[in-house]
Amino acid sequence: MSAPVKAGESKSQRLTKGGRKTRERIIEAAAELMFHHGAGGTSIPDIQAAAGVSASQIYHYFGDKQGLVLAVIDHQTDTRLAQQRPLLDSLDSIEALREWCDSAGNRQDARGCEGGCEIGSLASELADSDQSARTSLISAFDRWEDPIRSGLARMQARGELSERADTAALATALLAAIQGGMLLSQVRRSSTAYRQAVSAVIDHIESYLVR
Amino acid sequence: MSAPVKAGESKSQRLTKGGRKTRERIIEAAAELMFHHGAGGTSIPDIQAAAGVSASQIYHYFGDKQGLVLAVIDHQTDTRLAQQRPLLDSLDSIEALREWCDSAGNRQDARGCEGGCEIGSLASELADSDQSARTSLISAFDRWEDPIRSGLARMQARGELSERADTAALATALLAAIQGGMLLSQVRRSSTAYRQAVSAVIDHIESYLVR
Repeated sequence: MSAPVKAGESKSQRLTKGGRKTRERIIEAAAELMFHHGAGGTSIPDIQAAAGVSASQIYHYFGDKQGLVLAVIDHQTDTRLAQQRPLLDSLDSIEALREWCDSAGNRQDARGCEGGCEIGSLASELADSDQSARTSLISAFDRWEDPIRSGLARMQARGELSERADTAALATALLAAIQGGMLLSQVRRSSTAYRQAVSAVIDHIESYLVR
Repeated sequence: MSAPVKAGESKSQRLTKGGRKTRERIIEAAAELMFHHGAGGTSIPDIQAAAGVSASQIYHYFGDKQGLVLAVIDHQTDTRLAQQRPLLDSLDSIEALREWCDSAGNRQDARGCEGGCEIGSLASELADSDQSARTSLISAFDRWEDPIRSGLARMQARGELSERADTAALATALLAAIQGGMLLSQVRRSSTAYRQAVSAVIDHIESYLVR
């Protein structure tokens, strides 16, 4: 076994290939369990069983459960953003915004609107109880909001969106519509609420188009 | 002690005044604990200690923890809606919508944006894991959406809002903006995201005004 990994270090960089694979397997198992049962509803023994590792391996790679929760937040953010590329890098037209939001609605339909948003669910659970998790969640939402904001800013720079449009505020409003819409859709088991929520905000963004 | 209360009966109707008070005290203690720690993070012994009752009293009034969770969802919905009246019954102008949403933003500021939405947090935690809770949450969100929708419908009936406006969809969009905005504000510890989210949707509703 390699030397214990200290908190705060760039852990995955210092690991052997086998170590990185084990660490990844633990994170993926924990992410799946926390998606279905929450961080609080997922125990270290649950993760051991799902990943086929010992408790000491988990503590070796993550220090404690809180360290693992932070790794799960980063992992879910990386995964969700990667799944949404290249759409996410070209959100500089009304059509692209609609297509991107539709694809997330179709993804909800495909799983019967169960599960909600991987990041939003952890945010709701952990924002008040875990200060480190909240810091990671701020970064997760910022990383999600950035491509929306920069797409709108490019439209504005090209003169397609009015100078009156507050692109940062509109990006936040769209992210909020996505989050709130997903929650209502999860409760109602229908993507209609999500689609209506994002549609209202994109229609509003469209009202700033320079004709 | 009165006869055991069977699940499905209208429990509070059949109770003595003292029984109703005890039941209320248990619900209020459970609601407070679940607001801070989630339903999963709140145990029966926690509730016993906070309400000063025995476990058998809790089981007597609610059957099991799930029954108590349902009572908490109803209680939080009743309380939040009651706090927002009479504003909630007069959401039939753009100004009234803005005032109502502002008041919720001020409430978030007053508590440092901690805690999020009492209903939204339970929804995120329970929508997938507890079918009875999900049914209660559908009703809770409907009860919240109804006064928005009927305010918009009154504006439309008076000819103030264009016939093109889908008042039901707009009401859902505003509720989603409230939910998503509160979640972002809880993570960022600032009501700005909430205010930007609701403002975008109300601006959009305003675009349907008949001038």
